[in-house]
Amino acid sequence: MPSINSLPASGTRDLLSGDVMFREANFSKIKRVFENFGFFPIDTPAFERIETLVEKYGDEGEKLIFKILQRGEQAQSGEADLALRYDLTVPLARVIAEYRNQLPSIFKRYQIGPVWRADRPGKGRYREFYQCDIDIVGVSSLMADVEIILALSEALVSLGLPSFTILLNSRKVISGLLEVYKVPQVLRSKVITILDKLDKIGIPGVCTQLEKIGLPLKSLDLIKLDLKENKHASIIRARLEDSQLGSVGLSEVDEIMRLVKPNLTPANIVFSPFLARGLDYYTGPIFEIIHHQNSKGSIAAGGRYDDLIEAFSGEPTPVCGGSLGIERIFLILQEKGIQLPKSPTVNVLVALWNKDFCQDTLQIAAELRRNNLSTEVYLKDNSKIGDQIRYASKRNIPYLVLLGPDEKQRGEVTVKNLKSGAQRSVLLSDLVSVINQENSD
Amino acid sequence: MPSINSLPASGTRDLLSGDVMFREANFSKIKRVFENFGFFPIDTPAFERIETLVEKYGDEGEKLIFKILQRGEQAQSGEADLALRYDLTVPLARVIAEYRNQLPSIFKRYQIGPVWRADRPGKGRYREFYQCDIDIVGVSSLMADVEIILALSEALVSLGLPSFTILLNSRKVISGLLEVYKVPQVLRSKVITILDKLDKIGIPGVCTQLEKIGLPLKSLDLIKLDLKENKHASIIRARLEDSQLGSVGLSEVDEIMRLVKPNLTPANIVFSPFLARGLDYYTGPIFEIIHHQNSKGSIAAGGRYDDLIEAFSGEPTPVCGGSLGIERIFLILQEKGIQLPKSPTVNVLVALWNKDFCQDTLQIAAELRRNNLSTEVYLKDNSKIGDQIRYASKRNIPYLVLLGPDEKQRGEVTVKNLKSGAQRSVLLSDLVSVINQENSD
Repeated sequence: MPSINSLPASGTRDLLSGDVMFREANFSKIKRVFENFGFFPIDTPAFERIETLVEKYGDEGEKLIFKILQRGEQAQSGEADLALRYDLTVPLARVIAEYRNQLPSIFKRYQIGPVWRADRPGKGRYREFYQCDIDIVGVSSLMADVEIILALSEALVSLGLPSFTILLNSRKVISGLLEVYKVPQVLRSKVITILDKLDKIGIPGVCTQLEKIGLPLKSLDLIKLDLKENKHASIIRARLEDSQLGSVGLSEVDEIMRLVKPNLTPANIVFSPFLARGLDYYTGPIFEIIHHQNSKGSIAAGGRYDDLIEAFSGEPTPVCGGSLGIERIFLILQEKGIQLPKSPTVNVLVALWNKDFCQDTLQIAAELRRNNLSTEVYLKDNSKIGDQIRYASKRNIPYLVLLGPDEKQRGEVTVKNLKSGAQRSVLLSDLVSVINQENSD
Repeated sequence: MPSINSLPASGTRDLLSGDVMFREANFSKIKRVFENFGFFPIDTPAFERIETLVEKYGDEGEKLIFKILQRGEQAQSGEADLALRYDLTVPLARVIAEYRNQLPSIFKRYQIGPVWRADRPGKGRYREFYQCDIDIVGVSSLMADVEIILALSEALVSLGLPSFTILLNSRKVISGLLEVYKVPQVLRSKVITILDKLDKIGIPGVCTQLEKIGLPLKSLDLIKLDLKENKHASIIRARLEDSQLGSVGLSEVDEIMRLVKPNLTPANIVFSPFLARGLDYYTGPIFEIIHHQNSKGSIAAGGRYDDLIEAFSGEPTPVCGGSLGIERIFLILQEKGIQLPKSPTVNVLVALWNKDFCQDTLQIAAELRRNNLSTEVYLKDNSKIGDQIRYASKRNIPYLVLLGPDEKQRGEVTVKNLKSGAQRSVLLSDLVSVINQENSD
């Protein structure tokens, strides 16, 4: 029979057991931290009506949305009416609008799940990848922004990544600076997009791009000067005194820095006046968390976006949130060898002497399982015992239990320790305690 | 601002925290059982290349596949190149073909995840719903079929559903019966489809439909007779002696019934010669599990499908598997009140006296969280204490901790038990042990 292409679709991955269990174990750690902070899970569908997603992510983002063809007779039209979710934030905004009467006045949720973007696939860049978000809805106080930062920090620590720095800014600081630099209104959003690339293309790259979009020379000179003095925040602080909005932004940054004390997180927190964050919808404090031994960009990020929910509910609703860059974090954990996926295994393989022993073998397995010893029965009823031992060794199963005709007559089983090679006969009734005993030695 | 429609797409659901935690808790129970039996998880992408899915589910199934429009310039074509997975079985077959050299010779996997079908939405019928599958690849022995049935049974017991019956048959029995009934070859697959509806439309319904497709009178009379004698399996057993294939099927059924002993499952196991299972791809033993106090159809089902993987790999590969009808099981659990989703809550709310107490409040919360007491900080910095107490009560948070100016001066906090209304001052350093103590009382 001719075979069909068996690869997964471009940009997607199959996860075998070791990978799934590696990911699940880390998701559990993260969930435990989030729930400890009073965040609880919600889940939303993989796809949304297409109207829910359009005009939320800017032109570039919108191109990357996977659209689903209409069904039945409408399929002929070639038109889409549904689309795969692009992030977990817009679905959250929709959920808040829909269920606002049954949600608590301060709503803290987490959501961990896949999103889909038709990006060009590359190393570490997938079309299906997980996001791991927390958000606090209904609080305009900066206490909420602080809680988001603390919960993400704590999650990173729980994952075994305690060395990171929190870069902090406010969209109001950026807007204030652009005012002070006299950047023409029409160029501001472009300038923010360019500044956002600072860590990727460096100061020269940023300046070249700013020239290209026709930024007035006077503005360009000021920006150049300040970019070079970036680390001396005092110059920027002085600059911001000339902008009311900028001053408000700075006081937000200072208040968050005052509250996020070293005994609450192991991280440094640093004012980063040119941190911009790409997405259009941020309105207040924004942050990124970068890992010290890794230059691949941020491992967590977030900010305040007070206007997005209003688009769905018609009611102004303050929100702030943040997200772990979980796929990147998994890469770091694996590269550092902190944790590696490994093939899972069971405690015991019960060998199958021959077809006549099926019933006895199943009974032994049931008894072991009832005692929480995960157990595999060798299922092929015509294999040599040597093949069964090799199968167990290959799978790293530590114990093999065998019931043959001799053992059966004596009411015993043979227990073989596959690491040491030692084997002995034990009474069937002692089997569970013998294996528990060997396990604890 | 005008508001946008905030409903999820037709046939899909938003799950709030209580629902997510209800589902997750049950998935954990199921995973524990599966892993105890030596099944381990895999995960596959939400979408597949469209060629992977076509011609696998029959005409009716294929109409229900959600197709994804091409991107970029190709979007204009109105053509799809990807499709959302319709089940977890075809992706498994693809995975086996792709990774067969790195998988163990006996491969036991489980997969729990959503699938998508463009069915007409209705009560309890969704377009996005979870499947919960186990399969054993590489074993032709009936021991594998038995393990599937035992693992699903054990999962049902762990979910709190110990009262069920296992209906057992083999595709070979059905084929043998159709031989004996002299059903013309061209009508056989139609007759199987009709017999599969027996539990929904009853014997008269089945007979009417069999007449409609033009089944010869002689065949019809035999089927009618046997349907009525269904419970007296001895008549069917005698009938099957005239078919070689039917006899093989019957011996499969008998061997499985012999091995699935009452001390391995609390269920009855019953030979059901007219059980057909809809899907085309079954080749050997098939089964359904029905719940005693519920007439909504099966809560688990499965069978052997030895030919599907060959379509991908070109190599004959025996496989059998089964699936929990998990969405239906959730409905039963909720209707029976065995388990109900409930809003999750935290242990402690730390109240916020005013803006000046933000720092102290965060410190207290951090200390509680470090001691695994899940803790929420009241995040609005301008609310009356009465409002904060009402917020905690409404959310069923059992303890409120308050640090005001008086408490601060004394190095104490006030702990309020919101169930009893009792409150007392305790030293800040005793807070964790006081709450742990009250909790255990």
